[in-house]
Amino acid sequence: MTAATRQSSGPRARPLAELAALVAGEVLGDGSLLITGVAGLEQAGAGHLSFYGNQKYKAQLAASKASAVLVGRDMAPPTGSVAYVRVDQPHLAFARVAQEFAPRRTVTPGVAPQAFVHPEATVAATASVLPFATVARGAIVGERCVIGPGCVVAEGAVVGDDTVLVANVSVLEACRVGARCLLHPGVVIGADGFGFAFDASLPGHVKIPQTGIVRVEDDVEIGANSCVDRATTGETVIGHGSKIDNLVQVGHNSLVGPMSILCAQVGLSGSTELGTGVVLAGQVGVAGHLKIGDLAKVGAQSGVMSPVDDGATVLGAPAINAKDFLRSAALFAKLPELNKTIRDLSRRLEALEQEPKKP
Amino acid sequence: MTAATRQSSGPRARPLAELAALVAGEVLGDGSLLITGVAGLEQAGAGHLSFYGNQKYKAQLAASKASAVLVGRDMAPPTGSVAYVRVDQPHLAFARVAQEFAPRRTVTPGVAPQAFVHPEATVAATASVLPFATVARGAIVGERCVIGPGCVVAEGAVVGDDTVLVANVSVLEACRVGARCLLHPGVVIGADGFGFAFDASLPGHVKIPQTGIVRVEDDVEIGANSCVDRATTGETVIGHGSKIDNLVQVGHNSLVGPMSILCAQVGLSGSTELGTGVVLAGQVGVAGHLKIGDLAKVGAQSGVMSPVDDGATVLGAPAINAKDFLRSAALFAKLPELNKTIRDLSRRLEALEQEPKKP
Amino acid sequence: MTAATRQSSGPRARPLAELAALVAGEVLGDGSLLITGVAGLEQAGAGHLSFYGNQKYKAQLAASKASAVLVGRDMAPPTGSVAYVRVDQPHLAFARVAQEFAPRRTVTPGVAPQAFVHPEATVAATASVLPFATVARGAIVGERCVIGPGCVVAEGAVVGDDTVLVANVSVLEACRVGARCLLHPGVVIGADGFGFAFDASLPGHVKIPQTGIVRVEDDVEIGANSCVDRATTGETVIGHGSKIDNLVQVGHNSLVGPMSILCAQVGLSGSTELGTGVVLAGQVGVAGHLKIGDLAKVGAQSGVMSPVDDGATVLGAPAINAKDFLRSAALFAKLPELNKTIRDLSRRLEALEQEPKKP
Repeated sequence: MTAATRQSSGPRARPLAELAALVAGEVLGDGSLLITGVAGLEQAGAGHLSFYGNQKYKAQLAASKASAVLVGRDMAPPTGSVAYVRVDQPHLAFARVAQEFAPRRTVTPGVAPQAFVHPEATVAATASVLPFATVARGAIVGERCVIGPGCVVAEGAVVGDDTVLVANVSVLEACRVGARCLLHPGVVIGADGFGFAFDASLPGHVKIPQTGIVRVEDDVEIGANSCVDRATTGETVIGHGSKIDNLVQVGHNSLVGPMSILCAQVGLSGSTELGTGVVLAGQVGVAGHLKIGDLAKVGAQSGVMSPVDDGATVLGAPAINAKDFLRSAALFAKLPELNKTIRDLSRRLEALEQEPKKP
Repeated sequence: MTAATRQSSGPRARPLAELAALVAGEVLGDGSLLITGVAGLEQAGAGHLSFYGNQKYKAQLAASKASAVLVGRDMAPPTGSVAYVRVDQPHLAFARVAQEFAPRRTVTPGVAPQAFVHPEATVAATASVLPFATVARGAIVGERCVIGPGCVVAEGAVVGDDTVLVANVSVLEACRVGARCLLHPGVVIGADGFGFAFDASLPGHVKIPQTGIVRVEDDVEIGANSCVDRATTGETVIGHGSKIDNLVQVGHNSLVGPMSILCAQVGLSGSTELGTGVVLAGQVGVAGHLKIGDLAKVGAQSGVMSPVDDGATVLGAPAINAKDFLRSAALFAKLPELNKTIRDLSRRLEALEQEPKKP
Repeated sequence: MTAATRQSSGPRARPLAELAALVAGEVLGDGSLLITGVAGLEQAGAGHLSFYGNQKYKAQLAASKASAVLVGRDMAPPTGSVAYVRVDQPHLAFARVAQEFAPRRTVTPGVAPQAFVHPEATVAATASVLPFATVARGAIVGERCVIGPGCVVAEGAVVGDDTVLVANVSVLEACRVGARCLLHPGVVIGADGFGFAFDASLPGHVKIPQTGIVRVEDDVEIGANSCVDRATTGETVIGHGSKIDNLVQVGHNSLVGPMSILCAQVGLSGSTELGTGVVLAGQVGVAGHLKIGDLAKVGAQSGVMSPVDDGATVLGAPAINAKDFLRSAALFAKLPELNKTIRDLSRRLEALEQEPKKP
């Protein structure tokens, strides 16, 4: 039986001091406490390590049943029986510790008898190809990859080492996915870019053949049912270390810089260029042929219709400086009141104007 | 041959009076009329029963070719040859009658020879597992379920009795789907929540392992290509009787209360909490860690950035009271005019100010 | 081995004059130049033909390494070594020439041994059904079709001649897809429309059976993971020659007119009616039971809440005349300034009012 499975054994309990050492943390409380797992403040129970990184969650901290909490360096010592672990960045420390407790995906190498691997495809001996997956002619699947049930690696496509296609993922012709990537169910890499020219003589839309590819670099995660279209010519690129959430659309010839974050339902038109470390919040749309600079942040649901400078934070549709947007949005809600004031001014002014002029 | 199929026999004709009785309706017209099916006012033809529940569709009622129409209790008798059936709630009565005429899905129990069921999975003898479906180790499939072509029920996942996964649905590791649910093609239950912590020393985003699950309660319907992410720890929950349309994103640790309605392309960030009977119209986005109260309604495309009270109706981005939004939106369209008025006032005021002061 | 594959042979080089003749173009430069492929201005290299159809890309034209460029009829002759080809519509001409260089999909007819075709299904001898595809009872697959890996053609569904379902596409019960269509991975045709009636006595949402179909006419392209819901009764229709991008939602009973363009992440509610040649930009939402007239254009992210006239261009949420919206949006950004002016006017007016009245 060929399978790629999560390890089902429960997490091993570890002393708090040992976990604190992993993240250069200072224990305030009992370091010998046995930690059996990690959880958010609200989900945590006895034996759990949680984290507190934002004053917004002060009430949750107070109410939490966690046995220990990762906190900032400036945190006062705990008053109750909970232990604190002071660290530089509680959220990051939590990620590190959580990985210690996470089940590992164990891959049983081999091609399932129910999979289809073309004789001219290349599948590493350490890779796992699960039932009903297709690896087409000329495709290459790297070491320790998992090609999950119903996934398609089309002709000439390449999947790098240690990459996991979870289920029903399509990596289409000649596209390339890097190493250590994680593509969730329903992801489509390399559907045709959306390009047509209207011919009034037919009449009808004439398809512009989309002959480029998609190149997904290393360490990229792409969420369920997200789509990255192939370039008209050349490449659509997802830079290394970028993370894309569910139901995101990346148009043809877009270039997403490294370590960028695209939240759920974001849509990039064609030829969008994102710098390094850009963050696009949920449901953002970006018009075509625009550049969004390094470390720029775009607030949720924004519609970006002009270039965004490095480091800028924009919001709204059309997107403008975020603080300006919030000021304008507050006044938008007061438009009826402003309108009333204007009418009132108008009336009063008229009254003054109708007073008899001085002789 | 293993198959789960719709019954292809046509609907059986039934007298109008018999159908009216099902919905406690009062027939105005010929109760012996044979009804052969149901249809909307515009699609209906001879022999069809339709419904009229909103004055907006008065013209469609007048033009309809339906033989009979479900109407409100206060409706005047028909003038032409059409029959009316007075009921309390025409739309609801239509649903009930339509179910009488709908083809039933008949399930031929058994596992197709082309499916893959792990020897350590449990599939009820009355369930149907169709070609190219995968039921992994430790998974449980309940009585009379249909696991359609290309569906994946991953390790340790549970699918309750009478639930249908139509096609290419993924229910991932350890997630639980209740009884009598209907998951349309491409639905993804249990992809990883979107959680990363940035480590400047790498630099790179460190993944926060997503070790929780999704729990979908009973009588839930989820539309095509919608995604419900697994919790970081604990559960993401879709409450019983909730209905989710296509292409919806539900972020990790969100709690959708019972009997809520999420229209197409809605996006919930992480840890969103919806009460009972909440309605989110199409393309709404909700920021994280917010609570939307019982019976609240959020208008289409709204961006919810603060908590919403029980029973409130909000609209806009940022979402505010719906009536206020519509008033402000009307004035937004008049901003050029307001601006002109302001300039005019300014000019006139200046003129007054420049008049010689009284001595 | 059964397969449907892109031709992998490289494009054949052709003299520029020969390509110019295909598009009735006038060569300014060396017509004997051998063109080996086409590319956008920025991607093009030696031997490539590109196009320039919009002054916005003047800088890209100047910097391009293309050997030849399709340009408008009024373009001045080139100054450097590049050749120009004057045509009526550079973008359209580019599409035509690009098709000359595009690899053809070659279909090896036959049903893969790993596919499932029901004995009562009809598959043309020239069609190709790839591994793990399902063609159910009573379904019909036309001449030269490709039913890609993991696709489902459900009971009684019809796929017209020369249509390609790329991978993991679901065409559900009784739906009809026309000839020469292209459905990208994850497309779902015929999931249930979203219709429920609330029954307070349960309490719960009662499903309105969705017994209509979807009819996709000829020459339609539908992008990855897009969804077209079946009608409650009757048909949801995608008119001939329409092109739909990725992640689009078309609600039940919508009628999309011929040659319309729906960009990524557009959402149509139920019973929306689009005329001929309508263009909806990305992330547009349209409320239910509305008509959008022929040749109307709706700008990105707009929320259409009222009917749109033939030929109109609208923008915003709620959508209004596009020019008006842009004027209002500019003033929205200046609301803080306007507010300040109003306060200032108010103060000055008060001062005037408090001046002693004339006796």
